[in-house]
Amino acid sequence: MNALPIVVQKFGGSSLADPERLADCAERAVEASRNHRLVVVVSAMGDTTNWLMGLAGEVSSNPDRRALDMLLATGEQVSASLMAIALQAQGIRAIPLAGADAGIRTDDLHGRARIRSIESTRLHDLMDDGAVPVVAGFQGASEIGDVTTIGRGGSDTSAVAIAASLNVGATGGRCDIFTDVDGVYTADPRIVKEARRLDRISVDEMLELASVGAGVLQERAVVFARRYNVPLRVLHSRKDGRGTEILREAPEMERNPVVGCALRMELGRIGVRGLPKGAAVQAAMFKALSASGVMVDDIVQTESNESLDVAFTVGHADLAEARDAVRGQIESMGLNDLDLEVEIGLAKISVVGTGMRSHVGIAGVMFDSLDQAGIPIMNITTSEIRISCLIPQDRSEEGLQTLHKAFGLEQGVESVDG
Amino acid sequence: MNALPIVVQKFGGSSLADPERLADCAERAVEASRNHRLVVVVSAMGDTTNWLMGLAGEVSSNPDRRALDMLLATGEQVSASLMAIALQAQGIRAIPLAGADAGIRTDDLHGRARIRSIESTRLHDLMDDGAVPVVAGFQGASEIGDVTTIGRGGSDTSAVAIAASLNVGATGGRCDIFTDVDGVYTADPRIVKEARRLDRISVDEMLELASVGAGVLQERAVVFARRYNVPLRVLHSRKDGRGTEILREAPEMERNPVVGCALRMELGRIGVRGLPKGAAVQAAMFKALSASGVMVDDIVQTESNESLDVAFTVGHADLAEARDAVRGQIESMGLNDLDLEVEIGLAKISVVGTGMRSHVGIAGVMFDSLDQAGIPIMNITTSEIRISCLIPQDRSEEGLQTLHKAFGLEQGVESVDG
Repeated sequence: MNALPIVVQKFGGSSLADPERLADCAERAVEASRNHRLVVVVSAMGDTTNWLMGLAGEVSSNPDRRALDMLLATGEQVSASLMAIALQAQGIRAIPLAGADAGIRTDDLHGRARIRSIESTRLHDLMDDGAVPVVAGFQGASEIGDVTTIGRGGSDTSAVAIAASLNVGATGGRCDIFTDVDGVYTADPRIVKEARRLDRISVDEMLELASVGAGVLQERAVVFARRYNVPLRVLHSRKDGRGTEILREAPEMERNPVVGCALRMELGRIGVRGLPKGAAVQAAMFKALSASGVMVDDIVQTESNESLDVAFTVGHADLAEARDAVRGQIESMGLNDLDLEVEIGLAKISVVGTGMRSHVGIAGVMFDSLDQAGIPIMNITTSEIRISCLIPQDRSEEGLQTLHKAFGLEQGVESVDG
Repeated sequence: MNALPIVVQKFGGSSLADPERLADCAERAVEASRNHRLVVVVSAMGDTTNWLMGLAGEVSSNPDRRALDMLLATGEQVSASLMAIALQAQGIRAIPLAGADAGIRTDDLHGRARIRSIESTRLHDLMDDGAVPVVAGFQGASEIGDVTTIGRGGSDTSAVAIAASLNVGATGGRCDIFTDVDGVYTADPRIVKEARRLDRISVDEMLELASVGAGVLQERAVVFARRYNVPLRVLHSRKDGRGTEILREAPEMERNPVVGCALRMELGRIGVRGLPKGAAVQAAMFKALSASGVMVDDIVQTESNESLDVAFTVGHADLAEARDAVRGQIESMGLNDLDLEVEIGLAKISVVGTGMRSHVGIAGVMFDSLDQAGIPIMNITTSEIRISCLIPQDRSEEGLQTLHKAFGLEQGVESVDG
């Protein structure tokens, strides 16, 4: 029994939206349990989490995070119980576990707790005993035993963290993320008709794609997968298919230097021109932004002989707060005559691929094709395997189609057997 | 702080059916917290429990009890979280706790677990710290830490058990059960218009009334209150009023020998005539019934020189199963020629009062008035402070009105200050 590979299967909320879909997911688990040791991780059913948030909102305009965590955690506990019941109906000895019962220990930052450790003894004991643990995702327990939730992308992260703690890779197993798309695409297929499912992608590329708006996998889960070397797959919960494998490295598959492109919408941009040099004004500015809880996306800084220009992007939701924080900061430094530029309605368009490391000219192709389509570029940021441009949101879908074509992403050149 | 009396407030599901009603209940708690140490115990909101049972039923026709317990327990956890959030909005430091977190330890009979002990250290610590623990009712944890539910009347029982473990009586406090009626009545006011709320009732009388169908308080909670001497009150969650106090003993208030009457509906009766004496046939019969999970209500046995007649009542839901179990048993004993009488559509009508101990003639008045109303009596059973008759269900409401009048229950003679 112990020689069987360990697989962690995670089922997302839309895959569990009703008892019928839940039964489909149970089928996947039953199949996997035939020749694997299996742990199942589940999200809350459908929009349960929003519904619970709504209830809390009716009771208080500013609910306490600790109580809210206990409330929200029930959503995944319902899923875990129902999934266990569905598996039992198929003859599987399934045991539902709250995150705390599965040994997930977090810090006490309620609502966005970080996983500190996973004591996997109970999971191992259950599997050794021939049982299938069904774990409520998105949650754990703090040191004093309070229920915590781990924030956005929580259940993906729970699944990958559990897979890491069970060292699934060493057993020949992996972590399978079941969702409502059949894999990772070269671009969002709702925008780019020619978008193509990738059979494989490297974890670095997946991470960059997730960080610039590809919604299939949560960035945080991919970070875990990379750090702990967890073999990962993304699959459709109701359609058969091989999905997309997320590999540690796959140099042979990198014939196309660009693997995919993505959009992040609803961005605003705040720019300050003519900041005095050497006064650490930017440091103070971004400290003020961080203190007011604003999530800054990209930062661009240009320097002339006398002064600095700084610009950064934030989501629309944070724009007003970011503007006020920056204005307060520069006024408190006596720089009242500085211009604050605020733009809204922007989008970030990105191309990602490990092949960029060896292929020069990717940036040139990108800027050229956007230029030829008449789409203005307002910011450029890059990482080693990604180039992003800030463009007007109302041109962004056209931009994505343009880049998808420019890099020949509709042709499946990267896959040996795809 | 520690000198303040401890009050346990329990809010039932119908009192928490929506956020607005929940806020009303929170008001009650805020009020009590001003001059008491307070623990709040809550049921699941409205019909949450049935809704969750329905979900489980869609997934499996025979869901596992352990998984079902984890599922159902989320209902009370949602209420506890929301109640804590509502109290926090009023400036109270409220801490939601699952049953397990509140120290409620049970055996592992999932779905109908029995409370073994309550480790009240955490409740005491929180109260000493000026906080209000808000405990999810109906649940606890087994020795190995699995969530259990404690079956029918669970949340009332949780509240009284917590009150017992905190020894509220010794602190000058009590346990208040808030529900959607304003107290205990001399009879169901939906049937008897003249029914009157009782200011006080003895715990023995309350127990007999609960056991014969008065639905205000769960019998099991009253058993706990009697055993551990917990001062108890039943109150309306939204109407002001003194409710009904349940007292250990109150001889002065017992001017009327009968305190109330009640109906239990939908009963069937199974009778066997001519059983051989001395063959322990009844013992085998009731063992068989118990093995098939049938809850037997009353048993009546009459003896002649040669043989025994045995009859018992069961709820309609158990009738077919009970008949089969008895038939199987008597056939297996070679008594194939015995007559099995099965009747349905019966009701048990009862009068209760500690005054019966000293007042003779109560039974006579009861049988006479039913007889004069032309209502046939098919069985009579008694306890020290209760007399019950089995009558046709279609005459039962009329019977209740008749008895209410015959014993003068519409007159508030029992109350000194009512």
